[in-house]
Amino acid sequence: MSDHPLEEILHPRSIAVVGASARGRGGMFLSPLQEFGFKGELYPVNPKYDEILGLKSYARVRDIPGPLDYVISSIPAAGVLDLIDDCVEKQVKCIHLFTARFSETGRQDAAELELEILKRAQDGGIRLIGPNCLGVYYPRMRIAFNEGMPKEPGNVGLASQSGGGVGEITGYAGLRGIRFSKAISYGNALDFNECDYLEYFAQDPETEIILMYIEGLRDPRRFHHVLREAAAVKPVIILKGGRGSAGTRATASHTASMAGTQKLWDSMIKQAGAVSAEDTEEIVDIAVSFCFSTPITGRRTAVAGGSGGSSVWAADLCEEAGLDVIPLPREIREELKNRGNPVWDWIGNPADFSISMGDRRDTANIMKMMAAHPDFDLLLMFLSGPWRGGGSGDVSIEEHMKQYELREIAGKPMVVIFQERPMGPPVKDTKELADMMAEMRKWMIKAKLPVYPSIKRAANAAVKVIEYYERRPA
Amino acid sequence: MSDHPLEEILHPRSIAVVGASARGRGGMFLSPLQEFGFKGELYPVNPKYDEILGLKSYARVRDIPGPLDYVISSIPAAGVLDLIDDCVEKQVKCIHLFTARFSETGRQDAAELELEILKRAQDGGIRLIGPNCLGVYYPRMRIAFNEGMPKEPGNVGLASQSGGGVGEITGYAGLRGIRFSKAISYGNALDFNECDYLEYFAQDPETEIILMYIEGLRDPRRFHHVLREAAAVKPVIILKGGRGSAGTRATASHTASMAGTQKLWDSMIKQAGAVSAEDTEEIVDIAVSFCFSTPITGRRTAVAGGSGGSSVWAADLCEEAGLDVIPLPREIREELKNRGNPVWDWIGNPADFSISMGDRRDTANIMKMMAAHPDFDLLLMFLSGPWRGGGSGDVSIEEHMKQYELREIAGKPMVVIFQERPMGPPVKDTKELADMMAEMRKWMIKAKLPVYPSIKRAANAAVKVIEYYERRPA
Repeated sequence: MSDHPLEEILHPRSIAVVGASARGRGGMFLSPLQEFGFKGELYPVNPKYDEILGLKSYARVRDIPGPLDYVISSIPAAGVLDLIDDCVEKQVKCIHLFTARFSETGRQDAAELELEILKRAQDGGIRLIGPNCLGVYYPRMRIAFNEGMPKEPGNVGLASQSGGGVGEITGYAGLRGIRFSKAISYGNALDFNECDYLEYFAQDPETEIILMYIEGLRDPRRFHHVLREAAAVKPVIILKGGRGSAGTRATASHTASMAGTQKLWDSMIKQAGAVSAEDTEEIVDIAVSFCFSTPITGRRTAVAGGSGGSSVWAADLCEEAGLDVIPLPREIREELKNRGNPVWDWIGNPADFSISMGDRRDTANIMKMMAAHPDFDLLLMFLSGPWRGGGSGDVSIEEHMKQYELREIAGKPMVVIFQERPMGPPVKDTKELADMMAEMRKWMIKAKLPVYPSIKRAANAAVKVIEYYERRPA
Repeated sequence: MSDHPLEEILHPRSIAVVGASARGRGGMFLSPLQEFGFKGELYPVNPKYDEILGLKSYARVRDIPGPLDYVISSIPAAGVLDLIDDCVEKQVKCIHLFTARFSETGRQDAAELELEILKRAQDGGIRLIGPNCLGVYYPRMRIAFNEGMPKEPGNVGLASQSGGGVGEITGYAGLRGIRFSKAISYGNALDFNECDYLEYFAQDPETEIILMYIEGLRDPRRFHHVLREAAAVKPVIILKGGRGSAGTRATASHTASMAGTQKLWDSMIKQAGAVSAEDTEEIVDIAVSFCFSTPITGRRTAVAGGSGGSSVWAADLCEEAGLDVIPLPREIREELKNRGNPVWDWIGNPADFSISMGDRRDTANIMKMMAAHPDFDLLLMFLSGPWRGGGSGDVSIEEHMKQYELREIAGKPMVVIFQERPMGPPVKDTKELADMMAEMRKWMIKAKLPVYPSIKRAANAAVKVIEYYERRPA
């Protein structure tokens, strides 16, 4: 256990859900904790019920018999000051305020109440997460705020100012195979702010990659410093919300944030050695590379596995993203000639496999030659589905993919394109396609492949990672 | 019937597949024609068989008893000159040469053979599609080159130099609800070239929107002229392959094309009043707007239906794409106040529905007010799935979506975001999610909605369409 103030808070022995109910959001904080099998004590608090979801319900926090570490507040804003008084009596360490309608409303009375809550909590020795946020997802501790989140822990830490952001990023990243050490939604950042969460993740041994979604900074000066220190020890990828005038209006009413100017942000992130992302897709795309590829440290890219058309598109999109699709090295061409390959003088980079190289063993062979050649820094490969004709309909998906022998060439950094769309027969309807996609995705996640849904997004993520390594001190 | 030379060719009374077999690509030209129920005569030609897929097989084209309009050549390059002689004797009108390994190999003898084929065909009065291409998909005539392509005809015409391109674009566009009048893969463009196909689609009453995938021009001067004339009568969206140096290498070995410089291209496309696309995703994204939205002619955008986070991201990404997310018009705010909406002074544009507006009827109401207001040129709306909490799990997908009453507000141009990812409970596994996605997509296609998988792609497509209308003469 580290001595960072969040460490103890993230390991509560008991949790009370105040404003709990059997239905709605109040119940939804309780039921995920039950579903995840939180091992400490769980106390619903709501004077209207005797029992909620099989647990005895208490009228007030002070009625709870045992010691209480952590409180989730799901009650209206007007009741929070009283709740804090109760929590002080119970020596609660932290309150997560799901409660909202404070400064983000733009109303002065609401902003004043928010400040009074901070003062009351500080006076009582209680720390606050939020308000206006979903709080903590910590699979190792079996803490979650939604049912159905993955129970397996991972190596990615996420701090998100938006509750929607934490749901969106963990959900989408989850489908791409990423798992989280902790994900924290922190809303208006009244007490703990962006600096605390970043500092925590930087020193957290369970976290190897840090993602942040930020709408505005509570403490810009400290953040600059903390970011530099964090980025020196692990990759930090930041999605900034509120980059333009309309976005700034939206962040004010969302989490009461002043968004700052985009130029300042960009230069701060670059200077600190962090990575910036433009949207939820991109932050996940970049994280996929850090999670599932060896470090990409150069731009010379081998493109393989595509048809004639997709090879051309890959060449264009890679170059436009800033990668360098170099001609096929002479040694590979000569080896192809020596092996008696009939199209040795026609195969290039991109290596178009549509005509003579249609055999999947040939595909795997040239990919391995490209992976082994020192002139290539990166391998971009297309993964085609079993529905792409070629008479392989009788081979299982796993057998089919094994022919690429991806694990054997994974020593070279790579991005894998799996376009998640029909490539031809024998797909008959959307439902059948969706089933096949789900099956393929399961396999790819199991294989821990850095998979991207389009060439453009794969090339863009690779360049972001390359720029990250270029900026790092050697 | 028009008098364009392609019109008669595209309405054959009989088709022979030369090099047909029960398996492999030769069979695959025959079996889609059978599956689609082509109404004319179908003749397999292959001396090795007596019967293929239930049809009598002929040793040579000249052995076919009845008249023959159209021949698909699936034999090696060396046999094509003899085939042409046979076809001249049978007064065949057009040969589609799937046969490849000509000029795209870079070998002089192959390029010379290609030219000899052209001369022999011209001398015999036979037109050529290809070589090195998949040929024609024409659902009204029940002609297709792959099984499983949609049988319903549509209003989009596609000419693609790449066979992979025609499969990729029709397949992906199909999943987005687009249907085709005709799609033609034309490969090396030895006889009919890009100008002929574009000219044909421009005058074709079955085609309202034209898509092209081009790697290189056979006749740049004529193309410039034809493009201008075509773009004057219907939207033309062009994806250019071979934009950089690696892409140019790839186009040479793919369809023997010299790619030209990207700058020249861009200015030609703009001058002609056409629209350019960067990849297969973008060409389909733009087509979706032309197919399913009223014309987008201004940049003032209303954003609605998202959570706090996605509202912020939409504002940023719309502005960065070149849309104008204006503040909520005063009249709408006053109407909300008059209706007694408790958050009338908090709702803005983007309209964040996550807290007080969670009720789907409220969401539909404010969307309708935005759609009706003359200050807005475009409505960007989020469509959330039934899995997004809110206790609506017992409502069918169709019931659920009806609450948005999308048809009623469809008079205003719009883009709809459906992110195709899990947004929270109660999704338990990928399989269940994929099933729900497939169900949702079916509904959205039935409703003919202009749906996009991400904010960024929706905003980008909208701007491309706006620029198209800005450039059109009034």
